[in-house]
Amino acid sequence: MTIKAYGARAGDLPLEPMNITRRTPSAHDVQIDITHCGVCHSDLHQVRSEWAGTLYPCVPGHEIVGRITAVGAQVSGYKPGDLVGVGCIVDSCQHCADCNDGLENYCDHMVLTYNGPTSDAPGHTLGGYSQQIVVHERYVLRIRHSEAQLAAVAPLLCAGITTWSPLRHWKVGPGQKVGVVGIGGLGHMGIKLAHAMGAYVVAFTTSESKREAARALGAHETVVSRNPDEMARHVGSLDFILNTVAASHDLDAFFALLKRDGTMALVGAPATPHPSPNVFNLIMKRRSLAGSLIGGISETQEMLDFCAKHNIVADVEMIRIDEINEAYERMLKGDVKYRFVIDCASLTA
Amino acid sequence: MTIKAYGARAGDLPLEPMNITRRTPSAHDVQIDITHCGVCHSDLHQVRSEWAGTLYPCVPGHEIVGRITAVGAQVSGYKPGDLVGVGCIVDSCQHCADCNDGLENYCDHMVLTYNGPTSDAPGHTLGGYSQQIVVHERYVLRIRHSEAQLAAVAPLLCAGITTWSPLRHWKVGPGQKVGVVGIGGLGHMGIKLAHAMGAYVVAFTTSESKREAARALGAHETVVSRNPDEMARHVGSLDFILNTVAASHDLDAFFALLKRDGTMALVGAPATPHPSPNVFNLIMKRRSLAGSLIGGISETQEMLDFCAKHNIVADVEMIRIDEINEAYERMLKGDVKYRFVIDCASLTA
Ligand SMILES: [Zn+2]
Ligand SMILES: [Zn+2]
Ligand SMILES: [Zn+2]
Ligand SMILES: [Zn+2]
Repeated sequence: MTIKAYGARAGDLPLEPMNITRRTPSAHDVQIDITHCGVCHSDLHQVRSEWAGTLYPCVPGHEIVGRITAVGAQVSGYKPGDLVGVGCIVDSCQHCADCNDGLENYCDHMVLTYNGPTSDAPGHTLGGYSQQIVVHERYVLRIRHSEAQLAAVAPLLCAGITTWSPLRHWKVGPGQKVGVVGIGGLGHMGIKLAHAMGAYVVAFTTSESKREAARALGAHETVVSRNPDEMARHVGSLDFILNTVAASHDLDAFFALLKRDGTMALVGAPATPHPSPNVFNLIMKRRSLAGSLIGGISETQEMLDFCAKHNIVADVEMIRIDEINEAYERMLKGDVKYRFVIDCASLTA
Repeated sequence: MTIKAYGARAGDLPLEPMNITRRTPSAHDVQIDITHCGVCHSDLHQVRSEWAGTLYPCVPGHEIVGRITAVGAQVSGYKPGDLVGVGCIVDSCQHCADCNDGLENYCDHMVLTYNGPTSDAPGHTLGGYSQQIVVHERYVLRIRHSEAQLAAVAPLLCAGITTWSPLRHWKVGPGQKVGVVGIGGLGHMGIKLAHAMGAYVVAFTTSESKREAARALGAHETVVSRNPDEMARHVGSLDFILNTVAASHDLDAFFALLKRDGTMALVGAPATPHPSPNVFNLIMKRRSLAGSLIGGISETQEMLDFCAKHNIVADVEMIRIDEINEAYERMLKGDVKYRFVIDCASLTA
C-alpha cells in the first residue's frame, strides 16, 4: 500500500512530500490511520543526521495517534475503530530479560519507529509524518482520552513516557520534593506528571520569563537556575531531579540540591559533554547521576491510562504538514509552547 | 594528659615526633590505648594539604585499634580492657535525619577523627598516630577478632567500612556479578568483602602483575582493564561496580560493563576530574553513577562482626612510627600489599 508522507532525502535538505509503502498487516499487525503526530526534538536531530547513522529517505515521527482501520487474524486486543497510539518503539526481540520485564526500551534489539532496521521497504522504519502505519500489536497503545483530545495526547507517546518512566522508577510521590530541570516539550510533561503523582514540584529554568508558565503547568515553585540565591534556598532538599535539558550544562549546581541518596536522572544526551561532575558532590551525600531512555510498553499504557484518568494532555500547537520546516526552525529557538503536533489530515489535502 | 604522637607542622614538612594532649574522659567518653593505626591515603593527602583546609599541627590516622583504659561514668557498653576500634568519625550532631538513620557519615556536622573541629586543644581533632585517644562511646566500635589479629583489623575501620557500606547499600549478594576496580588498600578489602557476601567477583586492574594477587584475595576473575578484548567479554554483565580508584580515569569503559539498572559507586574523589562520562552510557541501560562516603557507625559494627565471623582481616605490612615518611613514599608508588599499619608501641620507645 502506497501512502503519502513527509520526509527528508538527505541531511541538508528540508522535509518534502514523498510516497512510501506500508506492509500488508500480518497476523499480529494493526493498521492505523494516523490523525496526529507530535514533533520531537529527536526528529530534527535524526533528519539532519546530527547523530550518527541516519538512513534516507528519513520519515520522522514517533508521537503517533490515530484510529485502527484493520487488524491481523491473531490480534485479539484491538479492533477497527479503536483509538490508539504508537510511540518510539515498533519492535524488539520479545524474549530477552528486558522484554520479559516489559522494558522493551532497553532491549538490545529494540527497533525505533523510524530509522530502525526492518525487512519492510526501504529497509529501515519510517515514522509518523505519514497517513498510515502498520505495527505489531505488542507496540500499540490504547487511548482512553476523548477523540477531541487526540492532538494533545500525541506527545504523551514520547515526551510523556520519557518523563513518566523515571518519575515512576525512582518512586516519586506524595511527601517528596521533586525538581524538573528545563521547561520544554519534555519538562512541561514532567511538571504535569510529577504534580499529578502528588509530589511538591520545583521547576528550574534559565529564563525569568518562564516563571509564570511553570506555575500554570503545576510547579509549586520555580527557580531561575542562573540565580545563586534562589538555588541556595533548595540545597540538600530535593528527593529527585528529572533533568530534561539536553544542552551541555553544569550538573554540579543541581547535585547540591539533592538530599542524601537523591538521584538526578538525565533524559537527554548532550551533543557536547556536560562539564565533568564533581565526584565530591556524589560521595558526600551518596547521590546518584542516572539516565533513563523512553519507557517500556506496559508502563506507556499505564501512563496513558493515568493521564486519561487525571485529564492530563500536552500543551500543543497544531500545524499543517507543510509548516514542518518552519516549525523546526521555531523549535530550535525554543519558540513553542510546548509541542508542535502535525494535523495529519493535511497530508491528504 | 600529654601523650606522644607523630604529625606534621606544615604541609611541606615530614612527620615528626610531637607531644599532644587528650581531654580527661567525660561521662560518655572512652579512653583508649592505641595499639595499631592503619595508614590511609587520606592521611597523606591531608598531611600535605593536598585538599583544602588542613590545620597544623596535623596528626593523621583514622584506622585505630586498641584497648580501653578508662570509661566515663555514663558509659554502659564498654569497660576497661575491651578491644575496640575508632574509624574516621569521632562526633556528629546526634539528632539529624542522618544521625537518626545511623548514617553519621552523612551528617552535616560530622567531625572527622583528625583535622575536624573540636573544643579540645589545639581546636582541631588529632588522629591515631598517637599513644592514646579519647572518644565519645557512640563512635567506638567493638572488636571481636582475636588480639593477635589487631594489626590486620585496623584497616577495617576505614578501608573496610568504605567498601562494605556501598556493597551493602546496593545489596550485593549471591547470584550477582560484581566488579571491583583497583586493587589497593580499598580494593583488596572490596574483593574480600564482596566474595564473602557471596557475589561472583571480577577484579579490574591496570597491572598484569596483579592478576594472581587478585585471585588470592578472592576474585573469581581478573580483568586487565587496558585490554579491550578482556573488557569486551564482560559488557552488560555486571550488577554493580565498586570503583576504588581515586586517580582520574575513563569511567565509560566500566559503564559499558553494567547491566540495565546497574550502578557504579565511586569511593574516591580524583584531584583532577574524571573525563566527563558519556551520558548515552547512562541513558541506554538506565545505569547510575553514584558516590559513597565511609559508612555509619552501626554499619561499621555490622562489618566488624561480619569480618570476625568470616575471619576477614586486611593484608598488612607493619611499620614502626619512625618509618612513616618512608611508608608514604612507598604508598605513592603503590608499593604496599595492601596497607601499612603502624605498631603504636614504637611511639613509646
Ligand atoms: Zn521523541
Ligand atoms: Zn528483547
Ligand atoms: Zn581512610
Ligand atoms: Zn547529624
